[in-house]
Order: sequence, then C-alpha cells, then structure tokens
Amino acid sequence: MREDTPTVLNEQELKPAGSSMSPKITIELLRQLRQAMRNSKYISEPIQAYIIPSGDAHQSEYIAPCDCRREFICGFNGSAGTAIVTEQHAAMWTDGRYFLQASQQMDNNWTLMKMGLKETPTQEDWLLSVLPENSKVGVDPWIIAADQWKTMSRALASAGHSLVTVQDNLIDAIWEDRPTRPSTKLITLGVNYTGITWQEKVTALRAKMSERKISWFVVTALDEIAWLFNLRGSDIEYNPVFFAYAIIGMNTIRLFIDVKRMADPEVRQHLQLDSSGAAEMTIQTAPYELVYTELQAICAALGPKDKVWISDKASCALTEVIPKVHRSPIPYTPLCLAKAVKNPTEIQGMKMAHIKDAVALCELFAWLEKEIPKGTVTEISAADKAEEFRSQQKDFVGLSFPTISSVGPNGAIIHYRPLPETNRTLSLNEVYLIDSGAQYRDGTTDVTRTMHFGTPSAFEKECFTYVLKGHIAVSAAIFPNGTKGHLLDSFARAALWEYGLDYLHGTGHGVGCFLNVHEGPCGISYKTFADEPLEAGMIVSDEPGYYEDGSFGIRLENVVLVVPAKPKYNYRNRGSLTFEPITLVPIQLKMMNTDMLTQKERDWVNEYHRQCREIVGAELERQGRKEALDWLIRETQPIA
Amino acid sequence: MREDTPTVLNEQELKPAGSSMSPKITIELLRQLRQAMRNSKYISEPIQAYIIPSGDAHQSEYIAPCDCRREFICGFNGSAGTAIVTEQHAAMWTDGRYFLQASQQMDNNWTLMKMGLKETPTQEDWLLSVLPENSKVGVDPWIIAADQWKTMSRALASAGHSLVTVQDNLIDAIWEDRPTRPSTKLITLGVNYTGITWQEKVTALRAKMSERKISWFVVTALDEIAWLFNLRGSDIEYNPVFFAYAIIGMNTIRLFIDVKRMADPEVRQHLQLDSSGAAEMTIQTAPYELVYTELQAICAALGPKDKVWISDKASCALTEVIPKVHRSPIPYTPLCLAKAVKNPTEIQGMKMAHIKDAVALCELFAWLEKEIPKGTVTEISAADKAEEFRSQQKDFVGLSFPTISSVGPNGAIIHYRPLPETNRTLSLNEVYLIDSGAQYRDGTTDVTRTMHFGTPSAFEKECFTYVLKGHIAVSAAIFPNGTKGHLLDSFARAALWEYGLDYLHGTGHGVGCFLNVHEGPCGISYKTFADEPLEAGMIVSDEPGYYEDGSFGIRLENVVLVVPAKPKYNYRNRGSLTFEPITLVPIQLKMMNTDMLTQKERDWVNEYHRQCREIVGAELERQGRKEALDWLIRETQPIA
Repeated sequence: MREDTPTVLNEQELKPAGSSMSPKITIELLRQLRQAMRNSKYISEPIQAYIIPSGDAHQSEYIAPCDCRREFICGFNGSAGTAIVTEQHAAMWTDGRYFLQASQQMDNNWTLMKMGLKETPTQEDWLLSVLPENSKVGVDPWIIAADQWKTMSRALASAGHSLVTVQDNLIDAIWEDRPTRPSTKLITLGVNYTGITWQEKVTALRAKMSERKISWFVVTALDEIAWLFNLRGSDIEYNPVFFAYAIIGMNTIRLFIDVKRMADPEVRQHLQLDSSGAAEMTIQTAPYELVYTELQAICAALGPKDKVWISDKASCALTEVIPKVHRSPIPYTPLCLAKAVKNPTEIQGMKMAHIKDAVALCELFAWLEKEIPKGTVTEISAADKAEEFRSQQKDFVGLSFPTISSVGPNGAIIHYRPLPETNRTLSLNEVYLIDSGAQYRDGTTDVTRTMHFGTPSAFEKECFTYVLKGHIAVSAAIFPNGTKGHLLDSFARAALWEYGLDYLHGTGHGVGCFLNVHEGPCGISYKTFADEPLEAGMIVSDEPGYYEDGSFGIRLENVVLVVPAKPKYNYRNRGSLTFEPITLVPIQLKMMNTDMLTQKERDWVNEYHRQCREIVGAELERQGRKEALDWLIRETQPIA
Repeated sequence: MREDTPTVLNEQELKPAGSSMSPKITIELLRQLRQAMRNSKYISEPIQAYIIPSGDAHQSEYIAPCDCRREFICGFNGSAGTAIVTEQHAAMWTDGRYFLQASQQMDNNWTLMKMGLKETPTQEDWLLSVLPENSKVGVDPWIIAADQWKTMSRALASAGHSLVTVQDNLIDAIWEDRPTRPSTKLITLGVNYTGITWQEKVTALRAKMSERKISWFVVTALDEIAWLFNLRGSDIEYNPVFFAYAIIGMNTIRLFIDVKRMADPEVRQHLQLDSSGAAEMTIQTAPYELVYTELQAICAALGPKDKVWISDKASCALTEVIPKVHRSPIPYTPLCLAKAVKNPTEIQGMKMAHIKDAVALCELFAWLEKEIPKGTVTEISAADKAEEFRSQQKDFVGLSFPTISSVGPNGAIIHYRPLPETNRTLSLNEVYLIDSGAQYRDGTTDVTRTMHFGTPSAFEKECFTYVLKGHIAVSAAIFPNGTKGHLLDSFARAALWEYGLDYLHGTGHGVGCFLNVHEGPCGISYKTFADEPLEAGMIVSDEPGYYEDGSFGIRLENVVLVVPAKPKYNYRNRGSLTFEPITLVPIQLKMMNTDMLTQKERDWVNEYHRQCREIVGAELERQGRKEALDWLIRETQPIA
C-alpha cells in the first residue's frame, strides 16, 4: 500500500470518495469546548486558543477510536488534519487528499484551511492574525510531538503569546460517550516466529546503549514495544500493537501497560513475570499512566554524565520530563533499526505469509474471472471476497490495511477506499486495481495488482508496461552496500518520464513482520533524504503506478527483500545488494505490451512467473485448490 | 571538472601528487602568532586559541594569494583545511584527499587531524579537551561563515568557553611579505555578451525583493557581483571575478570596491558613473573596506518592518551587522538563481566558447597522436600544449581551472594535478585522461576526455563503456519540470553498479558563463538534497567516471544545457526537460566495447559525433586547421 504522504491534487480526484456525506453539527460542542477553555477546573488561567492535533500519545499512523479527538470536534475523519479553536474562530488544516471530504464533513462553524495552497496561512501565521495580545494557546502535551511543540512555541513567543500545556485533554472533558482505551488480549510469539527471544533483544539493545554511553532508553513507538517483547495486540485496527510504554536501563526493564493484561498466564509465562531470574532481565510492570511519574523519578536520580535516549518524534510531555542536559533525541531508535533488518526466521515467516497470500489472491482472481461477466461483483464485494479467501489461510489474524479495490476512474483516485456511495461494479470494460494485504502470525503482506477482465485498450497496456518497466528496474537493480533507498526512486520513473508520464507518490516503504505495514527507517522515495541505507534483510515495497484522471489507475506492488548481489566486480570491497521478490502473484500478461519490453525485462517476467508457478503452485496443490491452480498455470505462461 | 568535495580515500591514491615536498618550518611563526594572541594591540584580553579557516571574506572556492593565511601559518596548501593554534598546540584539520600532502607540507609543530576517520576529534571536541577553563577562542569574523560561527560558538559556550571576534587578522599581523589584495583591470561586458544590461538585472532583482517585501540585499559572493554589473576581473586565478561588495536597495545601488578601479573611463561609462540618470539607477561607489560601516548606517535607519537579505553563507562579520529581527538569511540568493538560468545570448556564447574549445582539443589530440610515439610528451607538456591551442582562439582569457592531465595510475588519483615530481610521459601503453577548460569572453568551458593512443585492454574498454553508458543515461534522460538534479545521479551509476563498480564523486555541477566553473544552485549529485530544481537554460556538467587504483582513471565530461523535451504525453501539463550537449569533442571510439551498447546508445553516439563533425568541422575548416579536421572526421565515423 502506498505510503499516505500528502500531496496537492486536483479536487476532481477526490470527488467519488467523499460524495454524499453530511456535515457534523458542532455548534454545541464548540460552545462546551470554549467553556472548558475558561474553566479553572482544567486550567489555572483561561486560554485563548486550543490546538487539537490528529494522532495519539505514541505518534501512531493509525489510531484507536478513543484518540479520534479531532474527528470528534469537527467531524472530519481523514487521516491527517489539525483543528484550532479560538474564542471566535474554528479552523482545520488538512492536505490536498482531503479538501473535498473535509468540506463535506464539517459544518459552517469551521473554516477549512487548504494546506499546500499559496493563500493558505500556516497555523502559526493564522494564530498571530486572530489572537488578542498576550494570548495563551493550549495543547495536550501528550499528543503534540516535541519538534512540533518547539516550532509552534517559538512562533507564538516571537509575537508575545505563549504556548502552554493543558494536562487534562479538553476534548475528553466534553466527550460524553468517548470510547475507552482498548485493552485487547495479547498474543505471545515464540522464537519459531520471532527468531530471537525478547531477552536477547534487550541484551542487544543494551550493547548499543553501552556503546553510545546511554543509561536509559524511553520506548514510545507501539511497534517498537511489540517487537521488543515479542508480543502483539489488536488495540488499533490493522496494526497488531497494544498501548504501552517501556523504559529500558542497563539493569532494569519497565513496562507500562494496563496491568489487567498481565493476568493472562500465557503472558506471565512469556514475560517470565513469576520466575526469579537475573534482576536485569526481570520486567517490572506498572500501569500505563505511571510512565510520566516513573520517568520523573528516574531522571531525578540521574548522574551528571547520564544520557537518556528518546525518539525525536516522541510526545512533548515525555520528552520534557528528561532534563535537556541528559536528553539525547534520535531520529531512528536502535529498536527501529534492529526491527527493520529481519532475521532468518522472520524472513522465512514473511515468505510463508506471502505464499499463503498469493494462494488467496489466485483464488480471488480465478473467482473474479468467473463472476464478473454476471455483473454482480462490486468493489466492496471483491474486497470482501479477498478477505474471505485470506481468512482461510493458516495463522490469519486480520487485514493489514483497508483494501483499496477500485474500478475504472476510481482507480485513478490515489487515496480511494470503496464506500457504499462510490461502489462501482466490476466489468469486462474497465481496469481493476486491488491493493490489499493481511496480518498473519508469521508475517505481514501488501500487494497491488492491476488487471483487465476483458480487452484492455492500447493506451492502458502502454501505461501498464511503463509501470512494469519501472517496477522491474527497481526490483532488478544492483547497487552498492550503503546506498539509501531514495537513490533508487528515479529508476522506477525513468520509463514513464521518457514518455512524459509520472506518479505523485513515493515508490516504496518498509514493511513490518506481523507488525505495521508501513515502518521506517528505510524506503524508496524522492521525498526523503534522511532514510537509513538499505541493508540485507530489510523488506520494502516496490510500487510504481500511473493514474489517468477520470479513467483508470495502474499500480504494481511487490514486497521485496534486500539480499546480497554478486556482480562481476567488487569495487573497494564494498559488496553489492539487490532485491528478491517475496510477493509471488502473477502480473497480468494481457495488460503488457510485450513489444515494448527489452529481452532482460522479458527474462525477468518469465523468471518471476516461473517462481510463482513453482512455489505458489505447490501450495495450491497441497491445499487442493484446483481452479486457482489452473488459473495460476495459465497466467504464468512464458512470454516469447 | 569534478566538484572538489571531500571524501575519505585510501591514502595510496594520494601518493604521487604529494611526493617529495618538504615541510615548512613554522616554529618562529607560531611563536609570533602566540605573542599576538596576547598582544593588547590586537585584542583587549588574551585569547587561548586562534582559529585560521581556509577561505576569504566572500567564501570563494578559489582564493587570492593574500588570503592564503592557513597555508602561510602551517605550510599546507590544499584547498580545504582549518588550522587552530593554542598556547601549547597547533593542529590542522583536512579531509582524505589531502592526508599525505598535509603530512609532507607541515613540520612536527603541527598535528594533522584526519577528518572522516573515527578516531579524529572534531575541532570543537578537541578545543574542549585542550583548553583551560573559561578560555577565549578568537577568529577573524570576516573569514568564518555565519553558520560555522554559530556551531562553534554554541559548542564552546556549552563548556564555559567563549568564541570571540578578533577584528585585526593575527596572521596578517605577523605576515611580513603578505601580498597585497589584487586590484586587476576590470573588463566591461556589453549586451552582445550578457544579453541584458546591468540596469535590467537590478530592476529584475528589485522586483523579486518587492515580491518578498525585502528592503535591502547585501551581495557578498564575488561571482554574483560580477554577474550583476556585467563586469569581470582577474583578482583570483581561474575565476574572472574582482573583490567587491554591493548593497542594493529599492532606490539605491552601492558598490564597495577599490576606488582606483573606477578611474578607468570604460568602467565609468559602463556603470554610468558620470551621467545624471534616474537616482535609483545611480551607482554610489565607496572603498571596499567601508561596506561594514555603510551597512551599519543602513541598518540604523531601518523601519520596524524592513527586512534585509543576506546569503546564509556570508561572513559572520557582515551578517551580525544586521539586527536579527531585520535579517533574512537565504540559502540561494535571487542573483544566484537568476545567474544559473542562462539567457539566449549567454547560451549562444557558451555554445560558441565550446566550439572554439573543441577546435583547440581536436588540434591537441591530432598533435598528441603524432608526438606520443616519440616519447617526448609529458602530462605537463600536454597540458601546456592544450593551453597554447586554446589561447589561439578568439576571446580567450585564461584557463577556468588547473588542467588535470594524467597518465596511467595518475589518472586514478581523483585529485591529481601534474607536478614536476609526478610528471609522467604519455605512451602507447597507458590510458590518458585530460580534464580541462578555459575562460573565453563569451563563455566558460570544462571538458574531460579519456583516450588510449595504443591498444586499450579489454578491461579498460569495459570500464570506459560503463562510464559512457552512465554519461548517456544522464544526457539523454527525459524528466518532468521541477525535478532536482540529485534525482538523476543514479542514472549515471546504474551500468557501473550492475557490475559492482562505482565512483566516489558527484556527477555534475553548475557552470558559469564567463564566470566560475563551479556554481550553484543546481547540480547532479547524490550528496545534496537542497539543490534547486533544474530549469530550461541551466547549464551543468555530466561527468561520471571510474578509477582503478594504481592502474588507470576514466572520466567522460560534457557540459550540457537543460532544454525543454517534447515526449509523447504531457502529464498534468507539467512539461518535460532533457539535456543538449554543448561540449562537442569526439568520444574515442577505440575505447568503446560497442557490443555492450544498446541500439539507443549507439544512436546517441552517432548523433553526437555527427554534430561534432558538422559544427566543429565547419569551424576547423574556417580556421584552416586541416590536420585537426582530418582527425575529427576519422574520429567521428558512425558505429554500426
């Protein structure tokens, strides 16, 4: 699945996704919020503005319903947006993906601030223009990241205002039926899934800390905590994580989590909570909310040379607890880096998950071929069918993101998700794009295929072939050790560029192993420069596309593993890398204009299809899925 | 010519360039400098350390002899290095290109700090380790850039020390026979060379200033001043610039320059110094040294909303004159951006300059072919011959950088310049690499060719062909408007990477028009992210290479013009760009393994050679250079 980075798009692109929504009535909510902004129960002095960012206290990409505060106050439920309420005004900033949707979901108490347009003021500039002198602007320090706090705080201070923390969240204060924070059952993962025990991970982390003379590490990202302890949850849809914090010292492990979850005997056993092992491997658990005071206590006892690691994207609240002289903010934590390089067991699991996923998709495509001519398959029912086939596979847990199932013009909407009001019927006349994936206990999948069930037009085939050339150019690239992924992004575009075409998103993102489908610190995108170099064992997506407004969308996505390459020479003994496709789903031959492919590209397609047939074929055979096997064999015929 | 960016290289690479140099004896100089550091004549309180950076008050890449202060104090004359002298120690930091050279040029009073090695402390860390408590560290605020000052100042302050400005340069104070600042005759350029008058440039600049609500612009870069006023000088070798500052207001133009230079009637006429034209186009000249006090006077009269532009690379001294609330530092000034996009007259001039340059090189190569078998041609004599042929061309002014003329293993030394003690004889058995260029009144040239005058080995041809493929991949690339040059860098490497090879420098740099051979803000390098997008009219180099240590070096460099492309489609009406080669010198067919080229690449070579033959052939004919013409015709035969 494409990484959801904001871009300024034509509004027309967004129409189908957002049509026929009705706005949320917010007049009473705004009255209550403004009252709270003056209420001494929450704040010592009234504030003149209150900022409501998207996001949770862990800066998660996906969030739980209890954290959808910005949606609650303004009605807009897109993934990115910040609301600001003053005594007189209410405004909400979002990017080009959401202009139409936001305008339909918000009532006229709200001003939509279209980010990326020249005339749109920044939040800072807007606040300076509307605030009375010496204003106080409040924000929940748990939701705002430390670096965002800094920028906003400086801008306000330069004009005589101040940014202040409001410890009680004012939205929560007025949100009567706010859902409780999820506390789902935890899944423990044995070394057969993780390759190494959590104790070994802690030891490796401490080695990195001692190398850099770090005394403590405050873990705030949910996927890092899940990975470290070999635990999974389902607190947030699509992301198998759970709400927790951890603080790791050289002799201490503290886990802050809903303590009820620790009653589960399996979890107790997994975390060795009842054994009297070595003190430095004993986990001390404490309620989730106590992380703040415990971190305060730890910081109070720091020696003059002690340093504490915390992600530079962590919340302002936790970051500020650590005195500046002891604070060592890092863009990528050692857990983020260690998690990105998969070990042999994880690689094996990811491969297995993608074979099962391919089985489900072969079933789906064989089924679609039969059903589409009847005129009864829609974007939504196709997505449901894909989920049904996936759920039949071993160790299936759930989807890894909402399925993008789109036909014809809907395929050109980069941010599309099928809704009842946009739902289109699959036919023999339009291109079908499906971008989908699942969580299995052994791995996370993410695959996009674009198909035509009738006869594609010459232009559709032409564009598909440029995208395929780009996909192959990245997948088959050989590059030296130490190369950052962003240096490969142009390879995916060269064929499109040659004919005056392009796509407005990055080419790839890191993929977790039974974890988040988007993860750092590597990727393949022209938008970043701070990515970490690709290393053998990292797993990323390769997903160029082409989108013809109002007509069709094409995207081809494989998940690929970084592996050592052995080219003819070895300049300065640096060693070389390349990619091995982990996704093994046929790429529709009917959509290719094979005359446009070079011999090398044809060889790549044939070798890829040979692997699909051999590996996925064997599994289809084992599972006795005859029709899908026939489909696979037909779709993987070599091209001349 | 490759941009001279530092890299950590194997020391072996540097041996030939630096051999048999003897160190400068510095014991007496250091004694005098340490005395000056305590002398109340220069400073109110003694300083415990003095920093001597490379560079001049304009942050020029090449500097005049009077500004070679770091070389004077320590003996090391490489292009990059910073010396720091304390009461007890003297240390000099430089990068991998210069480790050997510096160790040979400095005596044992100096510690060489090898930048890029793990064990080497930063200047800040080293100072903190050697300074007594509460130390003062001095530096000439004219030589240190504002951003460097900030970093150093913060690091020192964090440990209780302070960085202080020393207005009198302490090296100048002890440098008895210091050369005077050059004040060469100025060259005035008419619109036949520049395309637009300096008045039009000032008007365009003011439009940009008014668009951004900027009241004043302090121009500190020498090439920007030369470009703005359509003047050239020869104060710095290879760079046709002159020492000056300018301050541009909405109704004022101030030029700070050695006033003696303004006595030249041609200059007076060109700058309209004696006409009573419109006040806002009247240039007020003042002595070079008065820029500081004049800027102070201007700043004292600023209104509360006035903003002043200054490059963020300008000196600390001038930057600090502007109060922070009025200061608007910019990475690329509007002059830097305007200068980069060449107008039709400049493009015509650049093309003409490259045709003349090609004539000279055809002469050179025809001559080399005849002379090399005699065994009398050396790297130095070949370079001299190239200069001789160039100097016969119309409007020749001088070289644009020191010629890199290298044979066999010397070609693998990326930073090589031939010296008497390294000078190698050209032969029929070794690869010859020549990277050279000149300043003509109508343009600046820069071209690299790699040739063999006997029979190249299969490996030499193989590597040459990978480099050629990379060169063509960039030159023929089509890419959307708005693309930054660094996104094209990998195209130049893909063929080398595929076989496990690479080169450790960027692929291209901006080229001035009868100005500096290296200029911003565009380029083609994986090392940068802050480059400005390529635009039609920009001129850059395309120069991939391959260097086989101890054996040979290959580089193929053309100067190319960014031009609109007209591909089949025009996605979102963005428009497309590509490159047109301006350099027209044959690429040696003998070095190519044509079996390794695709049909597209062969077509590119043939079309390129057709242009060389047609355009340069006509000029050779016109100049009656029969032998060179025969050589050109033979070297531009189409390949099958």
